[in-house]
Formats: sequence, C-alpha cells, structure tokens
Amino acid sequence: MAFDALETPFGKVDKIIGGSAIYAAWAASNFTKPIKQVSIIGGDFPKEEITALEARGVQFEGVEVVPDGKSFFWSGRYHTDLNTRDTLVTDLNVLAQFDPKLPDSYQDCEFLMLGNLAPAVQISVINQLKKRPKLIVMDTMNYWMASAMDDLKKVLTMVDVLMVNDSEARELSGEYSIVKAALKIQQMGPKYLIIKKGEHGALLFHDKQIFFAPALPLEDVFDPTGAGDTFAGGFIGHIAHTRDISFNNMKTAIIVGSALASFCVEKFGPIRMKEISKDDITGRISEFVDLVDFDISLV
Amino acid sequence: MAFDALETPFGKVDKIIGGSAIYAAWAASNFTKPIKQVSIIGGDFPKEEITALEARGVQFEGVEVVPDGKSFFWSGRYHTDLNTRDTLVTDLNVLAQFDPKLPDSYQDCEFLMLGNLAPAVQISVINQLKKRPKLIVMDTMNYWMASAMDDLKKVLTMVDVLMVNDSEARELSGEYSIVKAALKIQQMGPKYLIIKKGEHGALLFHDKQIFFAPALPLEDVFDPTGAGDTFAGGFIGHIAHTRDISFNNMKTAIIVGSALASFCVEKFGPIRMKEISKDDITGRISEFVDLVDFDISLV
Repeated sequence: MAFDALETPFGKVDKIIGGSAIYAAWAASNFTKPIKQVSIIGGDFPKEEITALEARGVQFEGVEVVPDGKSFFWSGRYHTDLNTRDTLVTDLNVLAQFDPKLPDSYQDCEFLMLGNLAPAVQISVINQLKKRPKLIVMDTMNYWMASAMDDLKKVLTMVDVLMVNDSEARELSGEYSIVKAALKIQQMGPKYLIIKKGEHGALLFHDKQIFFAPALPLEDVFDPTGAGDTFAGGFIGHIAHTRDISFNNMKTAIIVGSALASFCVEKFGPIRMKEISKDDITGRISEFVDLVDFDISLV
Repeated sequence: MAFDALETPFGKVDKIIGGSAIYAAWAASNFTKPIKQVSIIGGDFPKEEITALEARGVQFEGVEVVPDGKSFFWSGRYHTDLNTRDTLVTDLNVLAQFDPKLPDSYQDCEFLMLGNLAPAVQISVINQLKKRPKLIVMDTMNYWMASAMDDLKKVLTMVDVLMVNDSEARELSGEYSIVKAALKIQQMGPKYLIIKKGEHGALLFHDKQIFFAPALPLEDVFDPTGAGDTFAGGFIGHIAHTRDISFNNMKTAIIVGSALASFCVEKFGPIRMKEISKDDITGRISEFVDLVDFDISLV
C-alpha cells in the first residue's frame, strides 16, 4: 500500500495511491470476500481509500499503521512503448521497517497471494500461518534475483504458483527458451508458473501442459501501473470464489485476471478499478472468448 | 526463389535454398494444387529442388531462368533472441532485372499471394491478370516504406489482405497503438490486415473485428528464416483449398499458417517443410486448439 507519482506519454499525476496490495484487493473484491490485507502504511495514507475498500469486504487488521511515518513512495516515467519505464524515486519510508504480524483473525485464510516484496517478508507471512493455505501464489521481480537469491530460492520451495514476466523467467532459470525456463522453474518449487508478457498475453505452465491467454488489443493504454497486480488479484479472486485449484480452473482465472488488467490500464492508477461493474467484467471476458475463437472443423 | 547463408546461435549453413516463393510453395502444397510460381532464378538453381516441388503440384512456367545468371543471395546472422538479425550480404543478381511475365496458363488463378518484393513488381503481377483473383494477399516490409512508399500505397489499394509485422504496421500507419494502426491501414486499402508478432503470435483485423492466434511455445527455435513466408503459404493454401474467403475461415487459415510456421523453425531453411506429413500438421493444429482452450462457464 503506497503512493505513486506517474508519468506516461498521455499525462502525469503527482500523487495517487498504489502498491500491489491495493490493486490486488480492488480486483479480487469483485469475486470474493473477506480479503485480509497485510501491509504497512504511514499516517499519511488516506482514510477514504481504506473506507472504500472496507465497503468491498477488505479487512485491514493486518495492516500496521505508523502514525508519524510516511507511506512507501515510488515515482516512475514510462517510455513511449509503455513496456519500459524509468524509476525516478523510491522512498521506502515505513516499508524499511516492515515486519508483518499476522492477526489471529487471518489464520483461516485458504488462499494466499504474496505481492512482490522481499522474499524474507514473503517467507515470514507463510510461516506465521499455522495451517497451510490451499493455494499460495507469489509475485516477484528481477530486483530480488540480484539482491536476495538465496531467500528467493527458499520461498520458491514454499509456494504453488509463481508469477513473473518473461525476462524474469529467463533470468531466474538461465534459459532463453521460455519452455525450457518454465520446466526449470517448476523444478525450483512452484508446480504452476505464470509468465506475464504484457501486451503479448500470459502463459500458464504445469508439468508438460501449457495454456496461453492473449491480452486484449486495446486502442489506448493510458497507464500500465498496477496491471500485473490487478491480474494477480483477479486470478486469486476467481480461485477463492470457486475454491477450485485445478489447472483447468487456473486457465479461467488467468482470463479473469487478464480482463481485470485490461480495465486497469485505461486510467491512472487504480481509478478505473473503482468504476467497473460486474457487467463490465462479464462483457470484457466475452471479448476474450471471441478473440481466440476459431473453427477447426474447417481444416 | 533464392539462396541463403544463415547463422543462428545453434549453427550455420553456407548455402541453402530459400526465398519467400519456396517457403510459401512448400507450405501451400500441403493443401492445394496446382500452385503457379512467379519468380526469376539463375542457372545455378538446383534442378532437384524444382523437381521436388513439381512432385507436390507446383508449376514453374512463370519462373524465368537466366542460364548464365546467378540466383538472388542473402546472408544473415541472427541474434541470441532470434527476433533480430543482421544482414551480412544481399546480392540481387538476376533479381535486379526481374520483370515478371505471366504465362497464359496462369490466367485462371483465383488466389494470389504476393511475396515481399518491390511494390512495382507486385503491381505488375496484379495488372497482368485479366480476371481479378477472388483474394489477393500481399506481404511487404519496412524497406519498401522507406524506398518506395508511393508504389506501396498504390498496391495497398489493389489487395484484400496485407501481412506485416508489428513494427511495420506502426511505421506504415504512424500509430503506436496496434489497434489504431490497424484501423488506419484498412483505410489505405486492404480490408483484412494480419499483424505477425513472431513468438507472440498474430492478429487478424477486419473492420472492428479482431482475432488473435498464439504462436506455439517451442522448446527450441533453430532457425526463424522463412517462418513468415511459410505462415503466408499455409494461410493462402488453406483459403485456396476451402475456397472460402470469409473472416471466419481466415481465422482458421491463420491457425493453419501458424502451425506450418512452427515446423519451419525447427530446422535450417525449408528442410523441415519437406519432412512433415498431413498427420504431423493435424497434430500440431490440435496443439493450438488446446493451447487457448478455456472454460468460461467457471466464471
């Protein structure tokens, strides 16, 4: 849970709420509740943002508030292609002292989504849960491969699903071929691997099975911030709603996550996520169905 | 019809036959015959390559042979990612004097595939056909956008389907968004636009309709040379076989083309194309079906 300052080719915003837990919560809250957040914020985090999420069934008992501290702040500028960006400022602020403490009320969690953060923090959260969740999904990034590879390798052995982008999958595995990379990463722990390719869609690997979900071709991508976290939130939200952790249902969950992410990028930060209705989501999902539908009887 | 020298991260070959007409013919000959080639070669072009294609129903009356000339030669080196390559040598040879003459026996052609070549040559072929084909498909590349834009714009008004890659679509339209680029290019002539994205699949645009075909995730891509031409040959071969030029059948044709291209990259040059059977192709197409199959009733 954080503040972002964003600059895209289409505009800029000086301070908007963000952070993976915010995006994931907005996305997942379309499908399931309660959602039990774990994070740390300063006294500067807007009360109304908390209230809006509480109305969607999101709980904040596990979010530590440091009254005289400042929330994490990130500032970035996107390039014209929107696939690459420069980080301008990273102020850890209260995140520097983050040592999550899970409340007792969180012990019944069946589905755990670990946002991109230090692997040691991810391990701490898993270890605090007395009963292992039915499914543990984790996100990570290349930064931890360079700075905390040992911890990262440990947490990989503890989770079921890993989400990374294609260059991260290559870095983690040392393999250029995505198929080979996926096989190697599965040997490192996670039995399911989701490789996110932004505008080129996403791949789900499990054993020798592969599923491909396209990204919806969009006329305008306004701000890609949070798209990956929104995807993750839609994914785990659908899984939690259906309580079905089969490969087959994960395929559907990836389509749901992709649909949610396609909304997220339409406006700055999480603004669009607060606007969309169930009907919007259903309509978007049917666009995915049409997008890849073909008639093989014609061959 | 040409010679290539190829260097990939996995090996090199000094002289192998190639050229878009060769790849397209091998691919299309799995589905339809006769196939009537238009090209120019030198006396150095191997007879046995002609004979092998003749056995598949490919005709060469429209191929000019310059007995004391040399066939077009291209030499290139691929980078590790196989998506980018350096051209080392381009010897036009007999291609410099190419002025195609369509034999009378070609006047009954119903489906025309124009490989990537000077737009003026593409225009000449179209103009020589007394009866307009049911479907004209053309490939082109950024080189012609820089050197022959006026001719390129003219041929675009004469064809039904344009195939380009994503960066070429952006260059041709001046739009970064692929969706906007597609709308603009349709206004330039072709009512159908196929945007090839290599390992990221292909998009078909028609009016406001969009179809996405994934690329099969491959463990090893050995040599990408000819993949685009093989895709084109599979596409037009399926269309000619079914004689159905609807959007719906073009979607299937793109899957067929993608399946053929996925074989092409498994070995150097067109080698793999000579080996595959109908069963291989059917099996590969069913992998595409599985790859994008998901159950929306679970949402």
